[in-house]
Amino acid sequence: MLFDKVAILGIGHIGSSLARVIRRDGLAGRLVAFDASGAHRDKAIELGIVDAATGDMGEAVGGADLVILATPVGSFADLAAAMAPHLAAGAIVTDVGSVKMAVIRDVGPYLPASVHFVPGHPIAGTEFSGPTSGFAELFQGRWCILTPPSGTDPEAVAKVVRLWESAGSMIEMMDAGHHDRVLAITSHLPHLIAYTIVGTATDLETSLQQEVVKFSASGFRDFTRIAASDPVMWRDIFLNNREAVLDVLQRFTEDLTALQRAIRWGEGEKLQELFTRTRAIRRSIIDARQA
Amino acid sequence: MLFDKVAILGIGHIGSSLARVIRRDGLAGRLVAFDASGAHRDKAIELGIVDAATGDMGEAVGGADLVILATPVGSFADLAAAMAPHLAAGAIVTDVGSVKMAVIRDVGPYLPASVHFVPGHPIAGTEFSGPTSGFAELFQGRWCILTPPSGTDPEAVAKVVRLWESAGSMIEMMDAGHHDRVLAITSHLPHLIAYTIVGTATDLETSLQQEVVKFSASGFRDFTRIAASDPVMWRDIFLNNREAVLDVLQRFTEDLTALQRAIRWGEGEKLQELFTRTRAIRRSIIDARQA
Repeated sequence: MLFDKVAILGIGHIGSSLARVIRRDGLAGRLVAFDASGAHRDKAIELGIVDAATGDMGEAVGGADLVILATPVGSFADLAAAMAPHLAAGAIVTDVGSVKMAVIRDVGPYLPASVHFVPGHPIAGTEFSGPTSGFAELFQGRWCILTPPSGTDPEAVAKVVRLWESAGSMIEMMDAGHHDRVLAITSHLPHLIAYTIVGTATDLETSLQQEVVKFSASGFRDFTRIAASDPVMWRDIFLNNREAVLDVLQRFTEDLTALQRAIRWGEGEKLQELFTRTRAIRRSIIDARQA
Repeated sequence: MLFDKVAILGIGHIGSSLARVIRRDGLAGRLVAFDASGAHRDKAIELGIVDAATGDMGEAVGGADLVILATPVGSFADLAAAMAPHLAAGAIVTDVGSVKMAVIRDVGPYLPASVHFVPGHPIAGTEFSGPTSGFAELFQGRWCILTPPSGTDPEAVAKVVRLWESAGSMIEMMDAGHHDRVLAITSHLPHLIAYTIVGTATDLETSLQQEVVKFSASGFRDFTRIAASDPVMWRDIFLNNREAVLDVLQRFTEDLTALQRAIRWGEGEKLQELFTRTRAIRRSIIDARQA
């Protein structure tokens, strides 16, 4: 048994998936969910994925040796302030947020010196939300990035590593700022663009919009899956990784403008050259078995 | 048997898939492939999906009662000029091109009055190319759009409809200009954006690029599949649907600029409102069974 008591704050898609892993592998003596939503708490109990579910922070984190933040990152500062007085000495606090600099900024200052903070980010998830959408295999074969600040207790880091290894993940250690830059291009920009194009389509006149749905298999469909992700979670990601997102977005719009010009002026070679180059990166992803 | 002799010009992904359908369902007395590539011709014979494969246009279309253009649309004018003298009276000419106005513009003028022209576009395909990548089930449950100019012989249209119904497709009749506008948003813009973002990523410094591949499951991956589509085919689509693509691209960049501004100024409600709205369209696509 890895932990005596684990508290998961937020029993949504990721939180409930992790609860299923902890339960399946018997990693905790006791597993408690904290959630502001009564419906989520009831569902978690009904699903049998936690021992208890509560809206009382002291009850949730009191005596826990592992606390996992699994709500949208915009709520982390408030959560940290609320849980700080109840944290046991020696407890490990970790999270699953998609940005890491802002999380360290928002949570770090509230934690007592006796508590170990090991920020984390599993590169996994579907477009579905809530406790019923979780499943234990979600993290299998996927990366989990940990960004412990230098000087973090190695034993605390090792225990979080073992949790994610138990979930089937591969672990990568990274500087928080570097994490935010990498994810801005691999995740945040793709989501922003998908949200935009689906938004552009929903603003079309009604008749055209129905045809967009009907003929979506021609490319559009792939964007709608991404653009169906949790709205609050993604609002918080963009607000909390602002600089890195705006930076890659600037590069993207420059490149798009260049392509727009090539189409307007009929520069076929430029188009073909780019379209040939982009094929290679798909090959790399298949080779890296991330396809 | 629907046709005495069918000629497929271009035995690539779509052409070879359609050949497999025609062979499977015994729709043609004789099935001949025309292809400029000797390797493609040899492969088509080796796969046993055609009766003959030739680089001689007269041999391919002579005596055919159905001719299917299945090469990138930029080659259609030259193909039409080359095949015109060999076409039998009463023959039907159709195509599988992703743009329809340009195809009518490029092919129409070359066809003798005795030949029926029924432009078509199956909304199907994968990111793979060439005769080995085809499969008979590609069109199953997918839409096929036909855009016959008004006054086209109804019997000729009916025979093309039966070909696609045999392939398992659902048929939609549409005006060519409207087709190009619908596809600009459902297919051409999504491809353009996917090519752009993958291009932006390939221009990053090498170390960051490797991490983009490694952590691509977080969203980027979905774009790389689209951006691995055939470069020449897509070059030709953008050059031949220029106005409609530039028009939707303009709407898209306006919307993206508005989002960029919302992120810069921390306007969370605007972001959340859009992200909530886009979720609904995914639901429509699932309901329309096109997901």
